[in-house]
Amino acid sequence: MLDFTFKNTTDVRFGNDHIDAELHDVLSHYGQNVLLVYGGHSIKKSGLYERVLNLISDLNVTELAGIEPNPKIDSIRQGQKLAKDSQVDVILAVGGGSVIDAAKVIGSAAFYDGDPWELVVDSAKRYEIDQLPVVDILTLSATGSEMNFGAVISNPDIPLKKGTGGPNSPAVSFLDPTLTYTVPARQTAAGASDIFSHLCEQYFDNNASNDISRNMIEGLMRTVIYWAPIAVKEPENYDARANLMWVATMALNGIVGLGTINSWTVHPLEHELSAHYDITHGIGLAILTPRWMEFALNTNTKPLFARFARAVWDQYGYDDMELAENSIRRTHDWLKSLNHEMTLPDVGITDDSKFEEMAKAAVVDGKLSTDAYVPVTEKDAIRIYKDSMEEFNK
Amino acid sequence: MLDFTFKNTTDVRFGNDHIDAELHDVLSHYGQNVLLVYGGHSIKKSGLYERVLNLISDLNVTELAGIEPNPKIDSIRQGQKLAKDSQVDVILAVGGGSVIDAAKVIGSAAFYDGDPWELVVDSAKRYEIDQLPVVDILTLSATGSEMNFGAVISNPDIPLKKGTGGPNSPAVSFLDPTLTYTVPARQTAAGASDIFSHLCEQYFDNNASNDISRNMIEGLMRTVIYWAPIAVKEPENYDARANLMWVATMALNGIVGLGTINSWTVHPLEHELSAHYDITHGIGLAILTPRWMEFALNTNTKPLFARFARAVWDQYGYDDMELAENSIRRTHDWLKSLNHEMTLPDVGITDDSKFEEMAKAAVVDGKLSTDAYVPVTEKDAIRIYKDSMEEFNK
Repeated sequence: MLDFTFKNTTDVRFGNDHIDAELHDVLSHYGQNVLLVYGGHSIKKSGLYERVLNLISDLNVTELAGIEPNPKIDSIRQGQKLAKDSQVDVILAVGGGSVIDAAKVIGSAAFYDGDPWELVVDSAKRYEIDQLPVVDILTLSATGSEMNFGAVISNPDIPLKKGTGGPNSPAVSFLDPTLTYTVPARQTAAGASDIFSHLCEQYFDNNASNDISRNMIEGLMRTVIYWAPIAVKEPENYDARANLMWVATMALNGIVGLGTINSWTVHPLEHELSAHYDITHGIGLAILTPRWMEFALNTNTKPLFARFARAVWDQYGYDDMELAENSIRRTHDWLKSLNHEMTLPDVGITDDSKFEEMAKAAVVDGKLSTDAYVPVTEKDAIRIYKDSMEEFNK
Repeated sequence: MLDFTFKNTTDVRFGNDHIDAELHDVLSHYGQNVLLVYGGHSIKKSGLYERVLNLISDLNVTELAGIEPNPKIDSIRQGQKLAKDSQVDVILAVGGGSVIDAAKVIGSAAFYDGDPWELVVDSAKRYEIDQLPVVDILTLSATGSEMNFGAVISNPDIPLKKGTGGPNSPAVSFLDPTLTYTVPARQTAAGASDIFSHLCEQYFDNNASNDISRNMIEGLMRTVIYWAPIAVKEPENYDARANLMWVATMALNGIVGLGTINSWTVHPLEHELSAHYDITHGIGLAILTPRWMEFALNTNTKPLFARFARAVWDQYGYDDMELAENSIRRTHDWLKSLNHEMTLPDVGITDDSKFEEMAKAAVVDGKLSTDAYVPVTEKDAIRIYKDSMEEFNK
């Protein structure tokens, strides 16, 4: 197990009894000027928007609507201006990971005089400046942004989708599973694929002695594998929504990756897809993951894939290679059972003209040729993208 | 899953590179006056005492030595006086859970004018007053005190061993697995039994829908089951000591019990043993656990014991009752493989004269007859104590 430090001060309020009783006090603790950040129509349609405004009607609320999936740097620029103009004390993010990610970077940009894209490109700058506290009301189980330090921002002009770290995780996160009842099946599935991918990225790691992390991750994988299909089929099943919401948070609040090398592969590959084609992140991950697993399985990695088969997919037997291959097939079939789209053409990517450029960028951004669990060269990355054009038939 | 709130701000520094580089700055951040709290000779023998003093030679260090296992209220009284007299800014606890527990309560007592036993009996009082920050250097993997809000203090005059909660978990915890290399086999084993019991207490819970907690706990159980025997046999095996240290923390930092009813049974029963006979807590738990499991297994609880058998003990089959019984036998045999003492007479408790009094106190203190996973009456508690007099032969 590698040395690590861990400190995460996010105050989690889980369940459906907290928002009405606590939101106002939580926000006014930081001040009277609130920047309300959210996405599109879904929170208006569900009634959450009105409910929140009623709860904080005596505070000064400035609104920034229109945060997109794969949140764009222009939204951050707008937020920066609003936060400064309105002397905002606290940001209230109502939405999924994109909205919370945007809120985090706006929180830093409020104390920065330059263009906020500079903060995304060079995270170190964010540690030198202050950050507005972020309070969030989560409406989608997926990214884990509600209890971590990360944010992913896209700049369509380059195009580049880039991860960035900051000094603070959200101050307070309201996790109410009932707020995800209205999430459509496709988004629920994409969120589940994202959660599963976060767990895979931390599980397939070259630090072999970190057994406790793997044991915890296996438990979290079993959780998402079991409950995601239920949540897709029964959107108002509280237990399914609750287990899915908390596993999303636990999958990426830092804990299960402690003491590992934690060098990710599939996310950098997917970020290129989202940057160039603006596809749904979780769907991109679902498409790439089984192809990456096929690429990564070899004599050295066979034992870990076999362990994955036994502990996560309930496969039994003595032939590790057979188990490993089974685990990949099971992974694919489970993802497919959630998402209808399981190839790149399914999401509208029908030609391979950008694969070389994407592969080059992914390898550089993810340090894939040197640091990955199984090193990925540009050629390997192109192969994974090309494999994703066809039906998976292993 | 039940509603919950969670916030834990402990700053964990895990590994063997942190203390020399960071201890001084961590302490002096809080001030110059340090109360150093520790146990007996072990940290002097290991050289840790001298190493620590050298690192903080420019700070004003007041010492409180002699914190016992099952820490006594008299130590807290001494600490209270020293903390006040020396205007202490921060407490440095060097030792295992007993030392950290004592430091936490001393941290509150420093701001209290009455007898600190009042703070133990009525935890609410501790939330009304301030608490000195506690920094700890952990030397035993067991209690989880290094990342939680609890403390257990004994008052031999009553006699009573009582758990108490406070407003703050340790500010900074240094977890260096190499510092546990010198822990004798028996203490390593007792610590492992304590960890395993913490996991059982949270696993066997009447909130049936909290699948994610159970999945995480199963992973943590597998970790302690695998690594504890290795640590006992190979005291300087870093991976064993590291996995054991982190599983101890994860077993009781609050996370895996979130959303559960979390009403414990074996600990209240054991606290009576330690209060009356001052036996090693972990050994008492190891003796009681299989007998409690035998008591708790019935038609209603059979499915959970069968799940425990499959997920933790790798038992296969279709007969849930057979699996459940196997899991109890496996639990006993694993505990026995760690500890030589597996009956009460083994630890010097040879007559049952106090069992009635102990049973009565345990049932009241643990609300066992109403809140436990399987309700325990006084009569049941006596039966569990009596069963613990004999060899376990199920």
